[in-house]
Amino acid sequence: MDRRSALKKTLTAGAAAGAATLAAPAISQGKIEWRMVTTWPKNFPGLGVGAENLAKRITTMSGGRLTIKVFAAGEMVPPLQALDAVINGTAEMSHGAAYYWQNKNPGLSFFTGVPYGMTSRELAAWVRFLGGQQIWDEIYDQFGVQGFLSGDTGTQTGGWFRKELKSLADIKGLRFRTPGLGGQVWAKLGASVTNLAAGEIFQALQSGTLDAAEFVGPYNDLALGFHQVAKNYYMSSFVEPGLATEAVVNKSKFKALPADLQEIVRTACQAEYDQVASDFYANDPRALETLMTKHGVTIRQFPDDIVEAGAKAAVEVMTALRSSDNALAKKTVESFLSALNLMRARAEATDLPYLLARQKYFKLK
Amino acid sequence: MDRRSALKKTLTAGAAAGAATLAAPAISQGKIEWRMVTTWPKNFPGLGVGAENLAKRITTMSGGRLTIKVFAAGEMVPPLQALDAVINGTAEMSHGAAYYWQNKNPGLSFFTGVPYGMTSRELAAWVRFLGGQQIWDEIYDQFGVQGFLSGDTGTQTGGWFRKELKSLADIKGLRFRTPGLGGQVWAKLGASVTNLAAGEIFQALQSGTLDAAEFVGPYNDLALGFHQVAKNYYMSSFVEPGLATEAVVNKSKFKALPADLQEIVRTACQAEYDQVASDFYANDPRALETLMTKHGVTIRQFPDDIVEAGAKAAVEVMTALRSSDNALAKKTVESFLSALNLMRARAEATDLPYLLARQKYFKLK
Repeated sequence: MDRRSALKKTLTAGAAAGAATLAAPAISQGKIEWRMVTTWPKNFPGLGVGAENLAKRITTMSGGRLTIKVFAAGEMVPPLQALDAVINGTAEMSHGAAYYWQNKNPGLSFFTGVPYGMTSRELAAWVRFLGGQQIWDEIYDQFGVQGFLSGDTGTQTGGWFRKELKSLADIKGLRFRTPGLGGQVWAKLGASVTNLAAGEIFQALQSGTLDAAEFVGPYNDLALGFHQVAKNYYMSSFVEPGLATEAVVNKSKFKALPADLQEIVRTACQAEYDQVASDFYANDPRALETLMTKHGVTIRQFPDDIVEAGAKAAVEVMTALRSSDNALAKKTVESFLSALNLMRARAEATDLPYLLARQKYFKLK
Repeated sequence: MDRRSALKKTLTAGAAAGAATLAAPAISQGKIEWRMVTTWPKNFPGLGVGAENLAKRITTMSGGRLTIKVFAAGEMVPPLQALDAVINGTAEMSHGAAYYWQNKNPGLSFFTGVPYGMTSRELAAWVRFLGGQQIWDEIYDQFGVQGFLSGDTGTQTGGWFRKELKSLADIKGLRFRTPGLGGQVWAKLGASVTNLAAGEIFQALQSGTLDAAEFVGPYNDLALGFHQVAKNYYMSSFVEPGLATEAVVNKSKFKALPADLQEIVRTACQAEYDQVASDFYANDPRALETLMTKHGVTIRQFPDDIVEAGAKAAVEVMTALRSSDNALAKKTVESFLSALNLMRARAEATDLPYLLARQKYFKLK
């Protein structure tokens, strides 16, 4: 074979190889960039950091084939338009909390956390093994998006109160910042409930416009300085036994990804569910220690009659939802309650007695 | 070109293509297959399934570039040689529980779960945020391997007892199957502690060679049929507040992977930590319901004097470990106790009061 025919041979082989490459889906060859809009301020401890870590994991695991660019609240769209941005294609992905969108379907609150509802472990078990994800998918299918659990705060604290609460009677007329279904519960107890953005709470507490405010827990609260103007820090919240974050993807863009990238997105979300919860379990108590030892905060638990009335109010809120006209919301509540009642048996027979025993008997510094 | 020269050309081109492939780093071009040996029987609920899911996730996320082939206990090596197989290169990866290797270093028990120790959430927070992983790495560095959390059972049950326990006095001489540091605690309470493989427990309980046996929880126990020969099922274990599984990799082979595959392995392990725990939280109560309603099992809690004496014994076991000659074991215990004492403040101020309030006041079927 002479040089010319050798060259021709090479070119032909090259063309054939090129054709084979082009025949493969373009998506597997090129680099994809997704925009992730979030409901969190930049570097927001726990939750916002969880969004940033999620983006990094996906980018790293995909070797840069799927790069996620994160936008803090307001950088591309206002926080409460994050889901709409994914629905209308302005962004491919969002990171926030499903209960922000309860105006789209009241059932969505249950994928974040509801008064007297599931702990973070129970919520994941419901979503992953007891039918929760399927119902969530049914709700979001209407909007062309899909949600994945992507983080959890664990059981939150009850809030900052300027005056000590002696009994349920002290709630009457109390001006309290607490949002969502939790706010509905507190309103039933007699509080005058308002919602303010995170950045406005401190000023309102300081000026006396608010008597009390609830935000997340020590890790986030310490940074906002509430302890400077309200010294009574009530611990266990009965309205937020957990707050799960979600990552939402545009479903058709997600389905267009090759199988490896789809699994990378799914698995990264699930790993971050654990990572964010670990962050809160490690850093909440550090912040709590600082609040107690450096800032003279008094740690309290709600009086029993408030806790009891809260349960009654939570039952009323859920009962109203399960008898609503919204079929998917009803289906969500029924599935949630059935899973909760199943899992309580385990929590109350093992987790709870164990924590009580350790609290009572195990002392070793 | 005649057929012979065409054939020769093809062979030459093939050789050239082969050479090109070899010139590039084999690891990024070729497909890597890793063997994962496990300590679990095939299809073992929760834990063995977790190992298989972990392998599938890594294989899928890597697009088949890193394929993990799973070997159930005994298929390649006996279960208790799984770690050695990774150390000596017979396998690249193992899936089991760190406390199986406490003869290599007693500190390793703390990465699985210890009497009166951490819950699954607390353990992950210690490992990921409070220095646990670094100490674990120091221990495993000696053997050229690295461990990652890869699953957790949550709080286990106390075990199956042929006779009801009325008080601590009933433990004296009780022939009880319970392994590890938990076994040491029960021995201090007066039990005659033995360890038997899972498959031997039923027969020993039935024949009366054992008075009691503890395995995992309802999900695993139901399958083994203990309820047929012992009707008293004691709930919350104070010696196993959780049991974390580990995935161990050969460190030099792990480091030789490109960055994307390393992150895929790490993230898959963390996602499975959540997945396995969710599996237990969903399926333990289902099994518990079956045991109670179909098999007439009586659910009990340990008498308070046993729970109290267990805490005293756990303090003794840990105190012995922290005063041992093994510097890394001491370091592990100190780090664990410091993290536990920090995180208890949160658990006891939020998680525990919440579970108590829900148990007491929230009833909605």
